[in-house]
Order: sequence, then structure tokens, then C-alpha cells
Amino acid sequence: MTKITIWNEFRHEKTDAAVQAMYPEGIHGQLAKFLTAAGFDATTATLDEPEHGLTDEVLANTDVLLWWGHMAHEEVSDEVVEKVHQRVLAGMGLIVLHSGHFSKIFKKLMGTSCDLKWREDESHARVWNVNPSHPITAGIGEFIDLEKEEMYGEHFDIPAPDELIFISWFPNGEVFRSGCTFARGNGKIFYFQPGHETYNSYYNEKVQQVIINAVNWAKPTDNLRPYYGHFQPLEK
Amino acid sequence: MTKITIWNEFRHEKTDAAVQAMYPEGIHGQLAKFLTAAGFDATTATLDEPEHGLTDEVLANTDVLLWWGHMAHEEVSDEVVEKVHQRVLAGMGLIVLHSGHFSKIFKKLMGTSCDLKWREDESHARVWNVNPSHPITAGIGEFIDLEKEEMYGEHFDIPAPDELIFISWFPNGEVFRSGCTFARGNGKIFYFQPGHETYNSYYNEKVQQVIINAVNWAKPTDNLRPYYGHFQPLEK
Amino acid sequence: MTKITIWNEFRHEKTDAAVQAMYPEGIHGQLAKFLTAAGFDATTATLDEPEHGLTDEVLANTDVLLWWGHMAHEEVSDEVVEKVHQRVLAGMGLIVLHSGHFSKIFKKLMGTSCDLKWREDESHARVWNVNPSHPITAGIGEFIDLEKEEMYGEHFDIPAPDELIFISWFPNGEVFRSGCTFARGNGKIFYFQPGHETYNSYYNEKVQQVIINAVNWAKPTDNLRPYYGHFQPLEK
Amino acid sequence: MTKITIWNEFRHEKTDAAVQAMYPEGIHGQLAKFLTAAGFDATTATLDEPEHGLTDEVLANTDVLLWWGHMAHEEVSDEVVEKVHQRVLAGMGLIVLHSGHFSKIFKKLMGTSCDLKWREDESHARVWNVNPSHPITAGIGEFIDLEKEEMYGEHFDIPAPDELIFISWFPNGEVFRSGCTFARGNGKIFYFQPGHETYNSYYNEKVQQVIINAVNWAKPTDNLRPYYGHFQPLEK
Repeated sequence: MTKITIWNEFRHEKTDAAVQAMYPEGIHGQLAKFLTAAGFDATTATLDEPEHGLTDEVLANTDVLLWWGHMAHEEVSDEVVEKVHQRVLAGMGLIVLHSGHFSKIFKKLMGTSCDLKWREDESHARVWNVNPSHPITAGIGEFIDLEKEEMYGEHFDIPAPDELIFISWFPNGEVFRSGCTFARGNGKIFYFQPGHETYNSYYNEKVQQVIINAVNWAKPTDNLRPYYGHFQPLEK
Repeated sequence: MTKITIWNEFRHEKTDAAVQAMYPEGIHGQLAKFLTAAGFDATTATLDEPEHGLTDEVLANTDVLLWWGHMAHEEVSDEVVEKVHQRVLAGMGLIVLHSGHFSKIFKKLMGTSCDLKWREDESHARVWNVNPSHPITAGIGEFIDLEKEEMYGEHFDIPAPDELIFISWFPNGEVFRSGCTFARGNGKIFYFQPGHETYNSYYNEKVQQVIINAVNWAKPTDNLRPYYGHFQPLEK
Repeated sequence: MTKITIWNEFRHEKTDAAVQAMYPEGIHGQLAKFLTAAGFDATTATLDEPEHGLTDEVLANTDVLLWWGHMAHEEVSDEVVEKVHQRVLAGMGLIVLHSGHFSKIFKKLMGTSCDLKWREDESHARVWNVNPSHPITAGIGEFIDLEKEEMYGEHFDIPAPDELIFISWFPNGEVFRSGCTFARGNGKIFYFQPGHETYNSYYNEKVQQVIINAVNWAKPTDNLRPYYGHFQPLEK
Repeated sequence: MTKITIWNEFRHEKTDAAVQAMYPEGIHGQLAKFLTAAGFDATTATLDEPEHGLTDEVLANTDVLLWWGHMAHEEVSDEVVEKVHQRVLAGMGLIVLHSGHFSKIFKKLMGTSCDLKWREDESHARVWNVNPSHPITAGIGEFIDLEKEEMYGEHFDIPAPDELIFISWFPNGEVFRSGCTFARGNGKIFYFQPGHETYNSYYNEKVQQVIINAVNWAKPTDNLRPYYGHFQPLEK
């Protein structure tokens, strides 16, 4: 059974009535609900817990880590970021959601600024599937219509993704590479754009299906981390 | 249960004692044996059957097609190649083995000559895993040592693969991108180099594991082929 | 001096007043005008010339071929397509414009249907630069606004491009990978979406700059086609 | 005229007679010699200069930075690394040579460990060109034979390169992705493996040609860094 840890900053939900109304159990609570229903062993961790809830034991027992953060990226300790980084290189999957694009861990894995254009304009959005053979889009069809989503626009300052999965359309003129995969070390990473804290994207069944698919895609294989360092010749 | 059709030219085995000795039930027979043992619903088809064994019904009931051919690529009818091509674009997985690099179907899907350097020099080979997070390499470790394999050398005239999985080393000086994935339409394609007709590569357990992994990776998702053509506006 | 051949179907311009009004010297004429002004040695060839204007001598003397076709793709002879294909693999650059996505040569090089969604709705479009370090986007800035362009929408049934250069936004809800590079053999290929026959895109200075940049990018290097076939060992 | 800064750690040359004998003017000196002869405006900078020779002024006036380091990666200040990182994202090209794979700047840009297998066994090596249409391989032909080169072997823990240019073969059984390109922000990066401090690779004319080609490829385009942040709607 795939073991998921859902990490959420969990700050907006404590202070902002609109966010509380949308996600009364926190964004992590809503993510945990549908992932548990999908048959995963899902637990949660949040910023204000000791070690942000990401102890060595938790990380060692995590197959796939989900990450949602926004206003407090800088409060995540470098030490925890370093541990998460090592776990990803060792094979743990990582799913970075929405404003997590600016998290320390995502920027460290990408090597770029991960910056973008953004705007909250209470508009709808459309997430186009540009990779119909990919397991992450299984059962999704051609696009996902979102009632409301924050605009994120190009240029998105990331490395060229290994696989481009989704491109989003926004009504006021922008496009965005909203679903992207990356391999780093033995780990698989998926970035997925939907999930503004005051909009209902995580109640959308297709968004849920994408995240479920992504967990299945991102879980580790049974390869050990390769040997690195001085190496004896294989030929004589 | 994933339905596999194993297509083999099945000519060398009828005329060449060394090939018969190595693969008494045909290369397709050996492939079918370990794929059946792995729990797949595996059937076979060969060049000299009517429609080369690839009738509309067979193709419609195939999740993943394996392809081994060598001396008689030109005898495969264009009509059958066209049908296989359409099935791949519609989502059927395709695993092209060894000298299948020069098959009509692979060349049609790649758009290049698919040519390469080659030499039979009775030497060993080493297949390096350069993609440790990929499901096709699960459980394979760092490399596969082959007792004997035909040298295939760069330049391999293919499009840049979507994912580079293996690079082979040959003792007399060559390298080869020996495991490559490609998506075409809704279909996933894996090319894998081992499998010369007089060598025992398809008895190698790691080679078998790669092919088993590749079948699981290549099977279709439940996405329909996208709509193409004139399209009504989604916005008003 | 880079030698360009601009191939145009040149049929709409003979029969359709709106096209004649927009491109009185033919689409090839307008392309030739700004490419000549940019310092290239640009000649033209059209469907109704003998061998479609693409004789062996013309092809042998072409560094970069531009291709615009639409209503008569099927009238292009397979023999000429085969020759162009061989020249691309040997190193000639190829720039495929707009409805050329459905040309025989592009489909042959891609190995897919190259199909897409489309609609003429007299609307504007915006071509976003998603690859700011690429020579094809030099001097283009963040986007190109087109007064009017035909909608081409995803899914665009092509292989994952080697490099994604542009993504287009259309006001009625679609997105499109509108600038894509591909290497095939020794040849470099660029697909670029703008250029509907009744719209003024080829008068747009940024569109012109993209095409000029693409010619410079696509011209052949001085590498010979690699050796293919039986190969003597390099080690003893 | 493209302005190059060649950064060298310049420590081995001060303490090791074999390195002094091979590169009496330092590795940077030899790189500067053939790059100057090729018509570039090449200057050098070394670790023990103030700010490692990479002042704001130097960086602002550098189109392409070359980087050779080995024993003292940790002595490079984080502040200088941060400045180089920002310059790469802003468009400066970066060519990382040999043991520079383990430099702070390369690891920061890659987001991975950049680790590999290695061995000095006084053997020759062969660098295969797997990208014959790429400007970096122009004039190189099918491979480069090196008299002696340190073995670097897979797995090389880097992200999948945007373009794979070279694969090296080593006689004792290993392969290595020895020429790789990456885009990060507005900057272009090329990693190239040859260049052990006691071997003569930087006197090899084909190695020199690759580096010359890479400088031409990596120089900035005239695109500004895209706008990032809150963005006004383009549509009304």
C-alpha cells in the first residue's frame, strides 16, 4: 500500500475566513480525504509541527510526498529541505501543488527561480491534456474545466520538463505549462498548478484523479540508488 | 489481464541450425514462455500466417505488441503496417526488439532511417541503466551483463527518445542507446536492443524483467483518442 | 550565404480573391521578400511546376526549405516527398508553416497523424515565448500578438518536440504548441503555426523575425551523414 | 565579439609537477590560448584572486563562462556562486568542464548530486557524437579519440539533459553521457567531460573545436529576462 505524506503549510486556513470556509479541515485534510478514499495510506504533516512534521522516521516511511505551501516558504528550515532533497534523490516521489512552485524544495530540485506571472481575477480556467498516453492523464479526457483558478502565466522559469502533461488556458490571455514531470536522482516529481486556497479545485473529481494518478506514477521503484565514487574496472 | 501479441518473423528458426538450437520453439516461443509465466495473456503471430497473423480482430484485442524481425522486413505488407500504425496511435503499446529497428513499422513511427552500425563478433556486452527511476528499469540494478550480443553502434538514426533508459557498451569500442521510449499518438513505444538470433539474451533473467516491465509500462491508458478536426468554441 | 527554397502550394492565391488581396505575389512571394531583405539567397518553388519545382538540383542546392501547403497535400508526389525526406536526413533544414502540419513530408518525418483542432473565427491570437534562451526567439520578447489567426488547438498529434518554443493562446478557449523543433537524421526541423492564407501574419515583423531566426538555426552543420552498416572494430 | 571568462581553480598546477608539465600556464592558460586564437575575447579568473576573480563587473561583462574545478569546490564562496547563478538565469552561457561536474554552481543549477563513477587508469577513451545535427558537433565527425582520459561512468546523477550530444566509451567497461546541454532561465549550459589535469585533452583539436562550438552556441540571445510577478490582464 503506497504511503503518502501530505505536507501543507496550514496557515491561510487558520487566519482567513474564506480559506476556512473552502477547506474547513485544511487543504491537507481535503487532499487526505480523497487519497484515503482512493486506497492510499495517507497521513499529513504541517509547518508548525516539530520538524514541520517531517521527521527522519516520517520521511523514511513516505513513498510519495505532496507539498502545498504559499505564504511561509521561508519558514521551512533548510535542514528539513535538505532531508527531503536527499529522500527524493533516493527515490521518494514528490508532487508539488500550485503555489508550492516557490517552495525551497522545488527551487532546489529545479535549479531555477521557478517564478511566473500570476493574478487572482475570479475567472475560470481550462487545463488541456497534451499527453494522452501518459499514466497521469488516464481517464481525464481532453481537458479539465475549473470553475475558478488563479492565473499562472508563462514564462514559467523551470527547466524544460521531462514530460509536458498539461497546458492551462486562462480567459484573460495567458497560457501555462500546468502539469510537468521531472526525474531527479531516483525520484520522480510532478508539478500540478490547480489549487488556489480560496477556490474549490481540490473538490474537482478530475483534479483528484490527476493527483491519484500522479501518486501511482511517482511511487519509488525497487532500484537502489546507484553506486557513486571510485569504481573498479569490470573488464580485465 | 494485459493481452500481448508477440510477432516474430520466424524465418531464421526454420532454416538455420544455430538459431534452432538456441530457440527451438522460435524466438516468439521463448518470449511467450516467460511472459506467460509473468501472468500475461500472451499469444503469438508470425510472418507466414495469413495477414501475418495480425488480423483486425487480433490487433483490436492486443494491448501490447512485441516485434522481432530481421531478414524479411520487406515481406511485411504495407497494409498490415498501416493497421499496426493506426493501432499504436490509438493506444496499443509496441515493444520493438533488436533487429526490429529496421522494421517498416518502426521506421514509419520514427520518421528516420533507423540505421546503425553493427557487427557480430562473438563478444559480450554490458547494458547500463541510465534511468534508475523509470518503471522499465525496476529491479534491474545498475547494468545487465550479456554473455554475447551483436554489436549495435552509434550513430543510431532515431529521433531523440522521450526517455533514454539504457546505453550499451561493447568491448571493441562502441556505445549504443539500447533502451529508448517514444510516445506516438496515444501509444507508447519501447525499443530494446538485446536479442540476436543465435545468442541467449532472451534467457537472461534481467532481459526478461526489462521486457516484462516494458509491457506493464506500455499498456494503454483508458483515454480515448482525442477529437481532431473542426471544433466549436468552448467560450461564448 | 544561406540558400533557401520557399515551397508554396500556390493554389488559394489563384482562385480566392481574399487570398489574392492579402498575398498578391503569393504566400511564397511575401516570404521571399522579407527573407531576401534579411540577406538570404531565397528562391521559390510551387506545386504546379515540373517536379513541383523541387528537382534534384534545386534540393542539392538548398540549405533550408520552407513549406506552406493546405488544400493539395495529396497532389504532392510521393517521389518528391521521398527526395525531400532524404535531403532532410542528410542535413537540409526544414521549416513547416501553418497548414503544412498536414503535408506528406511533415507526417512522414513525425510518424504520427499530425492532426489537431481548428476553427476560423476571425479572432486574434497570442503566441507565447516559452523558451527565452533559444536562438529562434532572439529579439522576440515575451509574446507575439497576432491581429487575426486561425485557431489551431490541442491535442496536436506530434511526437514530443525536442524543444518547445511557443505556445499559442486563442480567445475562445484553446491552446496550441505553436513552435516546436525536431531533429531527424542530420536535419533540423521547425514547425511554426502562424500563416492562415487570408490573414496578415507574414507581414508581422515578429513573425518574420522568428522565421529569419529559424532559418539561421536550421541551416546544416558541416558534419557528414554518419557511417551506417557493418563496421570494423576500433579496438584490437 | 563574444566575451569569455575562463575560470580555473588553479591549484593542481601550483603543487603537482605532472600537472605543471602538462599545463605550464595553467589549464585556464591553455583554454585561453586556443579560444583567443579562435577569435574570442577571452580572459581568465582563478580561485585565489579576490572574489575568485568573478567581480560584479567581470560577470556583467561575460557572455560565456567556462568552469574548471576539482579539489577545492568547497572553497568557492556561496556568495560568488549565487551571483554566477543569477547571471546564468539572466542569460550568460556556462560551459562546465570535466571535474566541474561537482562544482557548487553546477550542482545548484542541476538540483541533483551530479555524482558519477570515476577511475584513473591511464587508458584511452572515445567520445561518440550522438547528435550529428547539433551546432556543438559541427565539424567533429563521428567520434573523438582521446589518448588518455579519466574514466567517468554512469550513472551520472544529472537531470535528463535537454540534448544529449556525446556518449563516451571507456575500455574497461563503462559508458558516460559526456556532452549534455541544459537551459536554465535565459542561460544555456553545456557540460563536457574531457579534461583530466594530467592528460592532454585540451591540446586535442577536436576537443578544442567542441569548446569553440559550445561558446558560440551558449552566448546569450538579445531577449530580456521575462517579466515575473503580478500581471495585468492582456484581454479586456
